[in-house]
Amino acid sequence: MKQIRWITMLLLMAGTSMAQIPSLERIEPANWWVKMQQPFLQLIVHGNKIAERDVKLEYPGVTLLKVNKVENPNYLFLDLNIDPSTAPGTFPIRFVKKGSKDLVFSYELKARNTGTKAQGLTAGDLIYLIMPDRFANGDTTNDVIKGMQETTLNRDSMYYRHGGDMQGIINHLGYLQELGATALWMTPMITNDQPQASYHGYAATEQYRTDPRYGTNELYKTLADSLHKRGMKLVMDLVHNHIGSQHWTMKDMPMKNWVHQWPEFTRSSFRAQPDFDPYASQYDKDIMTNGWFDNHMPDLDQSNPFVRNYFTQSHIWWIEYAGVDAFRLDTYPYNDGEFMAAWGKAIKDAYPAFTFFGEVWVKGVADQVYFTQGKTVNQHLDTQLPGLTDFNSLWAITGAMNDKAAWDDGAVKLYTTLASDYQYQDPMRNVVFLDNHDLSRFYSVIGENKGKYKAALAWLLTTRGIPQLYYGNEIGMKNFSAPDGLVREDFKGGWKNDKVNKFTAAGRNEEENELHDYVQKLANYRKNNPVVQTGKLMQYIPQNNVYTYFRYNADKTVMIVLNPNTDPVTIDVSRFKERTNGFSNAHDIVTEKNYSLSDSLHVPATTTLVLELAH
Amino acid sequence: MKQIRWITMLLLMAGTSMAQIPSLERIEPANWWVKMQQPFLQLIVHGNKIAERDVKLEYPGVTLLKVNKVENPNYLFLDLNIDPSTAPGTFPIRFVKKGSKDLVFSYELKARNTGTKAQGLTAGDLIYLIMPDRFANGDTTNDVIKGMQETTLNRDSMYYRHGGDMQGIINHLGYLQELGATALWMTPMITNDQPQASYHGYAATEQYRTDPRYGTNELYKTLADSLHKRGMKLVMDLVHNHIGSQHWTMKDMPMKNWVHQWPEFTRSSFRAQPDFDPYASQYDKDIMTNGWFDNHMPDLDQSNPFVRNYFTQSHIWWIEYAGVDAFRLDTYPYNDGEFMAAWGKAIKDAYPAFTFFGEVWVKGVADQVYFTQGKTVNQHLDTQLPGLTDFNSLWAITGAMNDKAAWDDGAVKLYTTLASDYQYQDPMRNVVFLDNHDLSRFYSVIGENKGKYKAALAWLLTTRGIPQLYYGNEIGMKNFSAPDGLVREDFKGGWKNDKVNKFTAAGRNEEENELHDYVQKLANYRKNNPVVQTGKLMQYIPQNNVYTYFRYNADKTVMIVLNPNTDPVTIDVSRFKERTNGFSNAHDIVTEKNYSLSDSLHVPATTTLVLELAH
Repeated sequence: MKQIRWITMLLLMAGTSMAQIPSLERIEPANWWVKMQQPFLQLIVHGNKIAERDVKLEYPGVTLLKVNKVENPNYLFLDLNIDPSTAPGTFPIRFVKKGSKDLVFSYELKARNTGTKAQGLTAGDLIYLIMPDRFANGDTTNDVIKGMQETTLNRDSMYYRHGGDMQGIINHLGYLQELGATALWMTPMITNDQPQASYHGYAATEQYRTDPRYGTNELYKTLADSLHKRGMKLVMDLVHNHIGSQHWTMKDMPMKNWVHQWPEFTRSSFRAQPDFDPYASQYDKDIMTNGWFDNHMPDLDQSNPFVRNYFTQSHIWWIEYAGVDAFRLDTYPYNDGEFMAAWGKAIKDAYPAFTFFGEVWVKGVADQVYFTQGKTVNQHLDTQLPGLTDFNSLWAITGAMNDKAAWDDGAVKLYTTLASDYQYQDPMRNVVFLDNHDLSRFYSVIGENKGKYKAALAWLLTTRGIPQLYYGNEIGMKNFSAPDGLVREDFKGGWKNDKVNKFTAAGRNEEENELHDYVQKLANYRKNNPVVQTGKLMQYIPQNNVYTYFRYNADKTVMIVLNPNTDPVTIDVSRFKERTNGFSNAHDIVTEKNYSLSDSLHVPATTTLVLELAH
Repeated sequence: MKQIRWITMLLLMAGTSMAQIPSLERIEPANWWVKMQQPFLQLIVHGNKIAERDVKLEYPGVTLLKVNKVENPNYLFLDLNIDPSTAPGTFPIRFVKKGSKDLVFSYELKARNTGTKAQGLTAGDLIYLIMPDRFANGDTTNDVIKGMQETTLNRDSMYYRHGGDMQGIINHLGYLQELGATALWMTPMITNDQPQASYHGYAATEQYRTDPRYGTNELYKTLADSLHKRGMKLVMDLVHNHIGSQHWTMKDMPMKNWVHQWPEFTRSSFRAQPDFDPYASQYDKDIMTNGWFDNHMPDLDQSNPFVRNYFTQSHIWWIEYAGVDAFRLDTYPYNDGEFMAAWGKAIKDAYPAFTFFGEVWVKGVADQVYFTQGKTVNQHLDTQLPGLTDFNSLWAITGAMNDKAAWDDGAVKLYTTLASDYQYQDPMRNVVFLDNHDLSRFYSVIGENKGKYKAALAWLLTTRGIPQLYYGNEIGMKNFSAPDGLVREDFKGGWKNDKVNKFTAAGRNEEENELHDYVQKLANYRKNNPVVQTGKLMQYIPQNNVYTYFRYNADKTVMIVLNPNTDPVTIDVSRFKERTNGFSNAHDIVTEKNYSLSDSLHVPATTTLVLELAH
């Protein structure tokens, strides 16, 4: 409640007591490119009473279509048309007023970034997710940045900054590549100049600047380039739904409906149902999508065209600037669905190979499918969302490992969850995972049972979709999401003074090496074998709580047998003959043992066998 | 396994040792009608070596298109075309063979049954489900029928016949009508001449004859007419998937693929997933739909056009003969989906107002929706199934009543389940229920808690869809489905020598009268108020485990507040203003108390308030 009153107060004061604002504080985007897919560009201009000035610009091919004045006279929104014929170059934008000195901004239109990759993710990828503050500190000079609101670094607290940064990640790209990862997803690296918990990253205060504590924009581009040189990809984490309370636009709001205003602080219900419920009240719809995610995260009003343009352009800017390959979209169901569909269409039009996936944390496959593209489950709107974070398959593997086997419980959950895949336009675009920065680490969830953990990892790396590892999965990092935030612990060895270095075999203990080598083996098998990336899937009804499925293509057939039971089982392979016909042997990818397919198959307790079939 | 060998043996023996078969045992259907929507009719002819004879018939408008000989020479299938110009009448069908006496069947083509109702069910209905053997015995002369395989009547055992019949039901239609029921669904009344548990009804041995122990075909028509005179409807329970092992066609099979044959007895997996799983093996598909439901229930081969015609025509025959209004389709997902779609289309084409609903016992709304028509959840096939038995809403109301309230548990299940209704072409066609003949009685499921029971009944009679009561729901009949079958207990008072008569207020105890009058009040309110039949629904996210929804149309608004908690709650009505605007009072339909809507609303513990809003 305090929050909102404060915002309203600031809005009312804008243009009066905001004398501290420079005459021309900023224009964003500060540069653009010629020959972009869309000729339209809307610049946000911020400066003290800037709306009192006329705008002049002259550059061949560039037309100033409209100067938009809004509630707050400290803002102008300039609509430009950049004709395809426009040549790269720099030109002045002048803000003039009789009796005042002209304000001039030198605007640059660059040539298209030929290095832009925008490759998109496919089921051929393996994502490695990192919280950049917690992985490796490659540059201690940026640990604390003067003038920023959070002024200390404290590795003993999970809620303070720890100093991890992009240089730290760049230093360990070889480690990731050797592990078998093909794509890096960092939680947001954009500036979060919030007074508390700024390491978190989901409360942006700038759209066009990396957080200086992670490194410069240029370093982000270097990171992208380094990944691309290794044949790897970069996933950027975007938050459409909200910004930080200290976002630069919140300190002097362009207009009242920049964010959703409530008579008193109103939190989202965190229930996605009103997005699709045919019986929903407007009241519940508003609370879900217009309520605030948290009190320091103002909820953007995505029905406001100025909001839409400002944020969409910033996303395009990052693709073009750094050569980002894919986006991960935070808190997807909390957004305005119509906006997100339009946004998705705009991104796809601009970068056809580019992909993105939404964080869709909802229960039930169909309700998850609702948010994906293609109107496959009777949606009123095509969301244009290619893929999502597949929480339902996570709950399935969790159930498979933890639940007592029953008609609907245990390994059968993996089977029934995937059986519902018919509802998707393409379930191969789903991102599958065992945990992430918001979840308890899977190793803890399954009671630190190494067999179960390895069995689940093998599923992760052979099921359909795009698998995602969370940093430390490969060494069995532990802990629960509540209450202490320890799931965001530092990766040991990422800091110079760390006593051990888990990036090296010598620094890892026996169990860590076992897990690391297991992941590495399967991940590299995956990387080198299209059959487990894009091969077809066939699954069988589990028997005796043992789940068997196949990945197969014209070249290879891989049989995966997941036994979460604490007892070994022997399975009759004859019922799988549709897939085993023509093969006589099975080669275990992990142990490198060979089995005859004419016998029944022995599956040890809590084990997933990954078997490449052979003649 | 025994079963199948026996079948195969019979098949092999057909035409040789089957000398006991009369020369012309039967033709089905034994009559048809002129001016039916489809001119095509296929007669099944059974008689000793009948295939050795030629077929002759002459009647203006009737053409013998083809005489189909099949594996078993004791069968012929005659394809007829009945031109729309054909007049009603009778004509001989002659089966001739040189040196033998002609066999003659006098075939009747009747005028269309102008009394045919075929009205279909709508959300305006309230179904009352009866097992006819267990409701009332109106004719003791048919209790045991000489020559039928089950030769005793034993009311002490749940698995023997008890003597209930159609006359018993006819005698109590007034009771049902006064209660507020508008439609009668009996479990199958077709002949089940099985040696054991023939009361059950789902192992047909004839297609065109009611079980004589329930009464004649003529009495079935009388029942239909009696219902129609009262403005009520008749629902016929069909089993497409299987027949009884003693079905007349099983004793002398027309061909090997009349039913699905297996090398050894193979039971269905009872898992519907292979019907839709994009990754299913043919092995699992076959087991699901071609495996037998039970060893005395041979699984029909619905890919066989003779099977299709024979059963489909019998269904049409019953609509035309008796004026049935709707079908309930047993074990829907176990059928051949393509056949059921073609069947559904044929029935709709013939009787446009007629409706049917499938028994779809699957977990998860989307997997349930899969079986309904309209290809709304990315199905490859339009199933043509208008509605189904809504098991998922049953589990929701069960959870609401029994589960400890949590983020995903408790009253919220009612909310989240209905929120997924967007997936249906029309969820109003779903049949909602608290129990049926296969389930534990709801009163027992909720621990015989009268408050919860009444609260659930109020939900049943005000939520969306077509509510269904199971006989005895209105007097709180109890018991669990396992192990003793007591959910199929007799309705006391249905037998002359019963000590008490629950059909009368005097025969019911205090609690029974309380429940009866409660159901009667709400059911009759429902019957007289379209708002709770076809009115729109608006539901709100539950708060404090209290679920509030509205039914509304241009005339009325009804507010339903379901509080399953063991404590009373006070709710703030202001969040419902989209629906309460313009109203100042609320009239409780049950207690007839009035409340002011300007105050907060007091909801007693374990109670559902049904409030008609007033100015």
